[in-house]
Amino acid sequence: MLFSVQVEVTLRQGVADPQGATIERSLPHLGFDGVKGVRVGKSIRFDLEAADEASARAEVEDLTQRFLTNPVIEDSTISIVAGANA
Amino acid sequence: MLFSVQVEVTLRQGVADPQGATIERSLPHLGFDGVKGVRVGKSIRFDLEAADEASARAEVEDLTQRFLTNPVIEDSTISIVAGANA
Repeated sequence: MLFSVQVEVTLRQGVADPQGATIERSLPHLGFDGVKGVRVGKSIRFDLEAADEASARAEVEDLTQRFLTNPVIEDSTISIVAGANA
Repeated sequence: MLFSVQVEVTLRQGVADPQGATIERSLPHLGFDGVKGVRVGKSIRFDLEAADEASARAEVEDLTQRFLTNPVIEDSTISIVAGANA
């Protein structure tokens, strides 16, 4: 069965985010006020062939912890839906 | 009113994604089979102060088109919910 997976990788709270800080500092000069707390993370999408949703989730959690994130400074959020990514 | 905004920036279909290709090539050697079509994008989250949801969306669409994406090679998906990001 094919599952469409999204892993969002974000920096943990308290970890400095220079990319986000630069965006936040620039926007008021460019005419956009009222933007606060910009954080830049990664969004990794893929299709996964697995027997069922439980085994798909177990595999994705394992590979996310081991290869897609640095658990010291990053958190991850996994979403899995049946069917291929568009 | 405070809105919590997520902008997902993805490479357009057909644009080469070396980061995704490297992940996809590596995973089978690391014991994870069945992963296909890996694409790596950005997830940008921030809080936005705006009068209502319609004006929040208009502001976010404008700044996303102009500053957060390169429309030649990137697509964006915007989600806005009332309340601050966690």
